Amino acid sequence: MQALSSFIAGSWQTGKGEGTSLFNPATEEPIARASSDGLDLAGALDFARDRGGPALRALSFAERGKLLGEMARRIHEHRDALIELSMKNGGNTRSDAKFDVDGAMGTLAHYAELGAELGAARILADGEAVQLGRSPRLAGRHVLVPRPGVALLVNAFNFPAWGLGEKAACALLAGVPVVVKPATSTAWVAHKIVEIVADALPAGALSLVCGSAHELPGLLGPGDAIAFTGSSDTALRLRALPRVQTAAVRLNVEADSLNSAIVGADVEPGSDTYELFVADVVREVRQKTGQKCTAVRRIFAPEALVERVRDDLADRLRAVTPGDPFAEGVHMGPLASAQQKRDVSAGMARLGEHARMVCGGEPAPIGVPAGKGYFVAATLLEATDPGAAVLHELEVFGPVATLIAAPDDPAELCALVARGGGGLVCSAYSDDRKTAAALVAGLAPHHGRIVLGSQKIAGQAVGPGTVLPQLIHGGPGRAGGGEELGGPRGLAFYSQRTALQGDRALLDAIVK
Amino acid sequence: MQALSSFIAGSWQTGKGEGTSLFNPATEEPIARASSDGLDLAGALDFARDRGGPALRALSFAERGKLLGEMARRIHEHRDALIELSMKNGGNTRSDAKFDVDGAMGTLAHYAELGAELGAARILADGEAVQLGRSPRLAGRHVLVPRPGVALLVNAFNFPAWGLGEKAACALLAGVPVVVKPATSTAWVAHKIVEIVADALPAGALSLVCGSAHELPGLLGPGDAIAFTGSSDTALRLRALPRVQTAAVRLNVEADSLNSAIVGADVEPGSDTYELFVADVVREVRQKTGQKCTAVRRIFAPEALVERVRDDLADRLRAVTPGDPFAEGVHMGPLASAQQKRDVSAGMARLGEHARMVCGGEPAPIGVPAGKGYFVAATLLEATDPGAAVLHELEVFGPVATLIAAPDDPAELCALVARGGGGLVCSAYSDDRKTAAALVAGLAPHHGRIVLGSQKIAGQAVGPGTVLPQLIHGGPGRAGGGEELGGPRGLAFYSQRTALQGDRALLDAIVK
Repeated sequence: MQALSSFIAGSWQTGKGEGTSLFNPATEEPIARASSDGLDLAGALDFARDRGGPALRALSFAERGKLLGEMARRIHEHRDALIELSMKNGGNTRSDAKFDVDGAMGTLAHYAELGAELGAARILADGEAVQLGRSPRLAGRHVLVPRPGVALLVNAFNFPAWGLGEKAACALLAGVPVVVKPATSTAWVAHKIVEIVADALPAGALSLVCGSAHELPGLLGPGDAIAFTGSSDTALRLRALPRVQTAAVRLNVEADSLNSAIVGADVEPGSDTYELFVADVVREVRQKTGQKCTAVRRIFAPEALVERVRDDLADRLRAVTPGDPFAEGVHMGPLASAQQKRDVSAGMARLGEHARMVCGGEPAPIGVPAGKGYFVAATLLEATDPGAAVLHELEVFGPVATLIAAPDDPAELCALVARGGGGLVCSAYSDDRKTAAALVAGLAPHHGRIVLGSQKIAGQAVGPGTVLPQLIHGGPGRAGGGEELGGPRGLAFYSQRTALQGDRALLDAIVK
Repeated sequence: MQALSSFIAGSWQTGKGEGTSLFNPATEEPIARASSDGLDLAGALDFARDRGGPALRALSFAERGKLLGEMARRIHEHRDALIELSMKNGGNTRSDAKFDVDGAMGTLAHYAELGAELGAARILADGEAVQLGRSPRLAGRHVLVPRPGVALLVNAFNFPAWGLGEKAACALLAGVPVVVKPATSTAWVAHKIVEIVADALPAGALSLVCGSAHELPGLLGPGDAIAFTGSSDTALRLRALPRVQTAAVRLNVEADSLNSAIVGADVEPGSDTYELFVADVVREVRQKTGQKCTAVRRIFAPEALVERVRDDLADRLRAVTPGDPFAEGVHMGPLASAQQKRDVSAGMARLGEHARMVCGGEPAPIGVPAGKGYFVAATLLEATDPGAAVLHELEVFGPVATLIAAPDDPAELCALVARGGGGLVCSAYSDDRKTAAALVAGLAPHHGRIVLGSQKIAGQAVGPGTVLPQLIHGGPGRAGGGEELGGPRGLAFYSQRTALQGDRALLDAIVK
């Protein structure tokens, strides 16, 4: 069985003992194991800070961008192997595996291009110079410079490739070395990526810890950062770390989110906009077996449309065949682990107290040994009590969404959506500009991203569940209050913003 | 004796009991008292959220800017009375009192202008639209919208006017109602400002709590924010609040900082640049009796210059006469409170273990009853052990700075400065571009602002201790990791950044 070692202090090192097993979630077969026991994690951080940091800071943005481009190129070169691994270790269908691997590649390529655009500079100008006194000679200028420490990238199990790629792209382009800590259950893909790309990067720029994080987050100090994607519970433990509390360590959190899809009262069943809405929701329930932080959890339809929406969604969700990703005709893989299966089942039971099941129930997965695999059927619930707190507050991380009758008044509707307590993304489908504007006004304060579906873009829309490198990813409140990506905005978390103040000619010489 | 009431839920309300006394720190006479005991603080927050929030959000940036302009105008109208109060309650000389009051006015006026520039919009565009697909029709655009809650502005005792003005300017312009909680010892000036401006603002837009904060920070919820300036200890208590921990409440901290002034080896004694350096350091030690978060605490001079710098600084600091601000010939007032006096004395004793006193010691304040007042002499220490941790880590919040011999190598010098663990501002004086560039490269990652003093701007330089609304104020690590002001950047903390994604024409209609 494959033992996943860690890449720290410039070499591959294997932890002591058996460690934790990784499974094929379709068959429940153990396929690998990972242990970080006994590894010198403090030494790993020092190596990253002392070797990786200076090496990256010595490079221009264009040079760092080239490193990202090479990472993307190598991932592309090994794409088939990575997809296969993702199917085997993550329970992903081929299409879902591509979504993860291509997401990593696309994000790295996007930031490689941004690096090329930023060119030979090592200091990034933030806005124009401003005059401070009566004469233009005294000026101020903001710059972004690399923070002096290391970034610990703690990724969730659902996107071992993309999660690594998007965080590393921003950190490395900003000039900050990274230590990647993938979720153990699906760590093999991240392990393989680091194997592929490690020797393309300066020593210490990219490290990997497979297995338990042990005391790693607590070893961080001034100038270091944690970029975390995962559960609110883990986020809470990170926030409580003494070093985070004393403000020395920066922490970005991307956590739970009860993303909504809203179809407007103006939308005619059967119209392009309606079909876009239905297709988006079905994709967001099915894709990655609903294990996406951006997946749709709540569906709001006007009273008059509820029945039609329910029937149309149910028809399509019933046609989503679960099974072993390697088997023919499978549309949806298993959940990623036994723990996920337990959590999703428990969560569905809680939702079931205030919603009735429209479709779903016991799945009949194909291509797997009887009784094996962490499968759940694509499930649509319909709220019997639209105001019940659990429907707006409990994120069930699987192929499960709840249809809720929407109040007619946009403000009331937005207030109901806002009961999610802050979310990553909300999609709203309407061809009425007034409706769209009212929804944006009411929803924007509570979300990191709003997707406006309409007839004009029905043919080329990117679904709400796809995180694009050009736009920020993150959200307020329950979603963690963090912000990643967004093109150049993604560099800010890994940079120190500093105001320079002095002779205009001197500032111009320093900030090109 | 004046009882300072609180302005909450749209009316002035007086807390129960005696509360806390406010003193004239030059004479130790009690002059006012403040109590918030028994006030309905939860109701105050609700009123701000439910009345102030919608009222502000209904206004355009230009309209909100007008409110700020009116606040500035009214402060100007009552400038003399405010200065008098500041001298009496804060121990400020007239010049120091002006610095605080005019700072508030100037910052409000700056953001009033920014509001006018932003015009009729209610949604602030963040960057240009970006194309997301193959055709230009599918686009993304970032916007900033007002966060839905209330901002609690917790201010330090040293700037009751400016602290209120700068935080309120950013929050109100962003469209977020504020509850101001000034430090009790010097709250009278803030109280007076709210008296002056309250009826110029929509109900609930500006509230004031005088006296203990009681459970106020713990009552905040999703969508709310705390902007805090003060000690690291209090910051730590705020960070530990359950609501901050669970990510619902945003927290900006501006805390301790051991700001440095560095004179380059190229600087000739007697030159304009040298004189600028000396004048800046003397001002930063004297002004506000050293009670500025931006005051110079560490002075770095090359070995060859140390003696001259020491003598020149000592000469000028000895000439700084402490005394009652209302007395003739007084250059420096007392510390703001008995507690400050105790802390500064204790801090000086600790520094004294690794530094010798060049000038300072027992002050002989003029115009005060014998033995009265919280006075400290302007004090220069010289490090006997430049590497001693306490010199780089202990912020003594008074008119005290330590001269330290600087290593010749800029990288080593920057490393020594960086032992401050993150600071608000660092000033570097040099006419050599290479030196300036090397210092910026080494210092920027550890500071929120760098002031470059040089011959070219010697006649018009703004000292490092002056916080300008155009430039960010805040710093990494020990300084709290926060960021305020910086022109339009100051709105971000009170806003939700949201990515909009959809039909380009629709986005253009929503974001003007």
